[in-house]
Amino acid sequence: MKIICEKNELHKKVDIVTRAVAVKSPVYLLEGIYLKAEKAGLTLYGSDGTLYIRCRAAADVIEEGEIVLPARLFDEILSKFEDCELVLNTEGNNLTMQCGRSVTTLCFMDPAEYPAFPLYDGFKTAKAVSNQIVSMIDQTVFAASLSEDKPILTGILIEMEKETLNFVALDGYRLAMRKEVIQETAEKSEAVVPSRPMREVARILPADETVKLYCGSGLFVFVCADIEIAARVLQGEYIKYRNILPTEYSTRVIVNKKSIQDSIERASILAKQSKANLVNFKIEENVLTVTSDSEIGKAKEEVEINLLGKTLDISFNSRYMLDALKEIYDEEIVMDLNTSISPCAIRPVQGDGFLYLVLPVKTSNSYGA
Amino acid sequence: MKIICEKNELHKKVDIVTRAVAVKSPVYLLEGIYLKAEKAGLTLYGSDGTLYIRCRAAADVIEEGEIVLPARLFDEILSKFEDCELVLNTEGNNLTMQCGRSVTTLCFMDPAEYPAFPLYDGFKTAKAVSNQIVSMIDQTVFAASLSEDKPILTGILIEMEKETLNFVALDGYRLAMRKEVIQETAEKSEAVVPSRPMREVARILPADETVKLYCGSGLFVFVCADIEIAARVLQGEYIKYRNILPTEYSTRVIVNKKSIQDSIERASILAKQSKANLVNFKIEENVLTVTSDSEIGKAKEEVEINLLGKTLDISFNSRYMLDALKEIYDEEIVMDLNTSISPCAIRPVQGDGFLYLVLPVKTSNSYGA
Repeated sequence: MKIICEKNELHKKVDIVTRAVAVKSPVYLLEGIYLKAEKAGLTLYGSDGTLYIRCRAAADVIEEGEIVLPARLFDEILSKFEDCELVLNTEGNNLTMQCGRSVTTLCFMDPAEYPAFPLYDGFKTAKAVSNQIVSMIDQTVFAASLSEDKPILTGILIEMEKETLNFVALDGYRLAMRKEVIQETAEKSEAVVPSRPMREVARILPADETVKLYCGSGLFVFVCADIEIAARVLQGEYIKYRNILPTEYSTRVIVNKKSIQDSIERASILAKQSKANLVNFKIEENVLTVTSDSEIGKAKEEVEINLLGKTLDISFNSRYMLDALKEIYDEEIVMDLNTSISPCAIRPVQGDGFLYLVLPVKTSNSYGA
Repeated sequence: MKIICEKNELHKKVDIVTRAVAVKSPVYLLEGIYLKAEKAGLTLYGSDGTLYIRCRAAADVIEEGEIVLPARLFDEILSKFEDCELVLNTEGNNLTMQCGRSVTTLCFMDPAEYPAFPLYDGFKTAKAVSNQIVSMIDQTVFAASLSEDKPILTGILIEMEKETLNFVALDGYRLAMRKEVIQETAEKSEAVVPSRPMREVARILPADETVKLYCGSGLFVFVCADIEIAARVLQGEYIKYRNILPTEYSTRVIVNKKSIQDSIERASILAKQSKANLVNFKIEENVLTVTSDSEIGKAKEEVEINLLGKTLDISFNSRYMLDALKEIYDEEIVMDLNTSISPCAIRPVQGDGFLYLVLPVKTSNSYGA
């Protein structure tokens, strides 16, 4: 194998593909990335056996060949080279990289046993814009479960139907749902994709590009520009979440997002001193009072609100509230509530693209009034 | 106690004082900072029993008093408050902090048992500019020993004499020395100050201010603007380092600092794959060749140099070379060498303010030629 390429172009692509590669694996080959140089061009692959990334890099291929290189070492070497025209050349079991007066030689591995990039012909498809996908991931993935008790809840449910794409994550305490109208969908389908590949997709997708989605037997694939990302999906049935979405409210709070977020953040400093991490909301005409209490001190915050409906006293785990507020970029939000033991629904005032549900925590206080 | 102050001013000072406070201590009081409000103004103290910081903060003192507050919690609360006029008021065992519609209450502790800030009357003194002190610390502290085998080597030796201030750190493999001509020195004196307080001093000192140094019984004190920092010094005799400073050379290399640093950095990626972390220098007319070798690959770098004297083959631990090069800001450096087993002296081409010595590593290779 012999290729000539721009160092920066190759490094950018190696960075992307390395995201799929295991940091430490008992199989050393799986710590590697696979380079395939063909007359048609250079292709890079990375995989840990559950996530697969493949992309193309611009290069002049002088001599065809395929090798596997230790991913993080290769990435680090490229990061330190000056921006230059880089010549990669295999000799025996070694790859020599020449960049001006710098020459580095690395042992390579044989790609014969490297996991193949899965096929996805005949899968059901949809088309969206990369920015949509990234915001849909960011606004849901934090609500996926971190516990392996119910493995299916560690993923994001992706539903495709007509022109709608829907992402859902829930962990038993809260639910995040994000909906977008997209360019086109072939057929109704759904899959639950683990959080790790979804986070990588959000990091990798270039801005303002069309992303094609492929859903099929045990696999979900994102294709964008010259990058393909395939993830094994989680097996099992997802919770019928539509049954738990509230349809009415008796208390509606309209509030400035930043005001309530700042207040909860301040109150949470003391709340997190005790295990339950509780903040209490006392919802009254024009004002919502956030309080927290711990052995070492307490906080009280008043926030101006617009109240429709009844007053209410209710308590939450402050982290579950803050996780959602951090991901809402609108100036105003709506909180719909019913009783002090039923879920609170949070959404931006504008649009129905994002919905967040959080269960309150029952406290002796909140039933005192 | 009752005071009114600007939140940002108080927060800045709490940040500084908190640096002296233990993160976790079996004595809860030592996780606190001491606030003393007197008619004359507000003073803040922090200490872990070896490092002491005291400073003044602008405040209107309505009612005198003194309390100890949990340092990191207080700091975090201040960091989240909006910029405002803050009212601090004690009631019973609680301090109430009011900032607009935010009210936080914290339990305080009694300062009776808090470590007193040490006295330093009659100490020997010197005067320097804060920027001098900061660069002297940055350019030496990295060479102090991390091992407790010889505790005295974990500190920085500070020598004051006439108009010269000298900082030295060494760990048995390398030595860093930094000299400055300063404003004034009272009398000859020296002390070895542990690395941790020295690093804090470098972080805390405001730019372009006069720093007064006080050296005396078991203590070294830095005073700058409204901040006092006192550190317990290390006991024992420091190594007679002047005896090991080389006075001649048979090989002198003059080289662009960035070129050699970049080359060693690239070579070190492979060097650090093996435990010895070795880079070899082959010093010839006009060119210095840096090489490294490991099971997985090797690197070769050519750097243009100006050679005076003899050619030489010599090996170093790459980290010891890079640590020094990172702290030299000059464009060109001089490396003075004698044999492949005697120390290499590195200094900027201009001035004699910084000197770094590093011992080479004996390899089978380096004696082959």
